[in-house]
Amino acid sequence: MTVYYEDVEVGTVEAHGDYEVTREEVLSFAQQYDPQWFHTDPDRAAEESPYGGVIASGWHTAAMTMRLLVESQLADAATVGAKGVDELRWLVPVRPGDTLRIENEVLEKVPERPERGLVRARTRTYNQDDEAVFSMIGNVMYLRRSDE
Amino acid sequence: MTVYYEDVEVGTVEAHGDYEVTREEVLSFAQQYDPQWFHTDPDRAAEESPYGGVIASGWHTAAMTMRLLVESQLADAATVGAKGVDELRWLVPVRPGDTLRIENEVLEKVPERPERGLVRARTRTYNQDDEAVFSMIGNVMYLRRSDE
Repeated sequence: MTVYYEDVEVGTVEAHGDYEVTREEVLSFAQQYDPQWFHTDPDRAAEESPYGGVIASGWHTAAMTMRLLVESQLADAATVGAKGVDELRWLVPVRPGDTLRIENEVLEKVPERPERGLVRARTRTYNQDDEAVFSMIGNVMYLRRSDE
Repeated sequence: MTVYYEDVEVGTVEAHGDYEVTREEVLSFAQQYDPQWFHTDPDRAAEESPYGGVIASGWHTAAMTMRLLVESQLADAATVGAKGVDELRWLVPVRPGDTLRIENEVLEKVPERPERGLVRARTRTYNQDDEAVFSMIGNVMYLRRSDE
C-alpha cells in the first residue's frame, strides 16, 4: 500500500534494522566525501585521535540512517523528498563493526498545500549496545490522495 | 598552518569550488543510501517526477558539500568533528551536470571546555546558476592551542 499524507498518524513509532558498518565502507565513504584523517587513516587515528580509532563520517551515519528509513517506510510512501532537517546531532561515534538500527517517531503533520503536506518525524539511530548514536528531525513532503 | 579555535574569526566568509555532479555518482550514491525512485530511476523520474528528471539525494548534496568544506578549510583545522547541524535545508534540486560551490560564514564561537570550543558556521551551496541549493549551520568542535 502506498502511504499518503492522510495515512500518516502522529505518534506512530516504527523500528527497523540492521545495517552492518564495515571498515571498507567507512574508509571509502570518507575518502570520497569527508577525507579528514580521523575518518580515513586508521593508524593515525589509533595513535592520535580522542576516539581511539577511525570513526565513520557523520554524513555516512546520516546516509546509512537514510537507507534504513527508505527500507522501512519511504519506499512505500508517496513523498517527493524532504525540505530539510532540524536538530541533527551526532551523539556517539560510529565505528567499523557496529550494527545500526533506527526508530522513527511521527511528531507532527503540517498541511502545507492543497496537493501535499509536511510530516515532521524524529529519527534516532542506535548501535548494537543500544546507544543512540545519531538523531534528527526530518521534514518530509507527503502527497495527498487525489481522490479525496 | 593549523587553525585552532583561537584562530577562527567570527564574520569570516570563505568560498570554495567546484564539484561536478555526475549522473553516475548521483545514481550510485542513491542506490546505496537513498534508493527512492526519483533518485535512482531516470526513466520514471523523467515521466512522473515533479522535478522532471532524476535529482541527487539530499544526503548526497550534503556529502558533496562536506567534501568542499574539508578541501577548503577542515583539512587544515584542529577539529575533532562536529556535534551536529541545525537548519539543514534542501532549497533547489541538484541534478546531474550541475557544478557546485560553497560559501562558509563563521557565525559564532562558543567556549565550551578548557581544551576545545564550538564554531558555528553557515554553509551555503550554490549551483552554476548561482542558485542556493543547500544550506546548513554546522557546530564544529575546534581544539584550543595547548601553548596558550
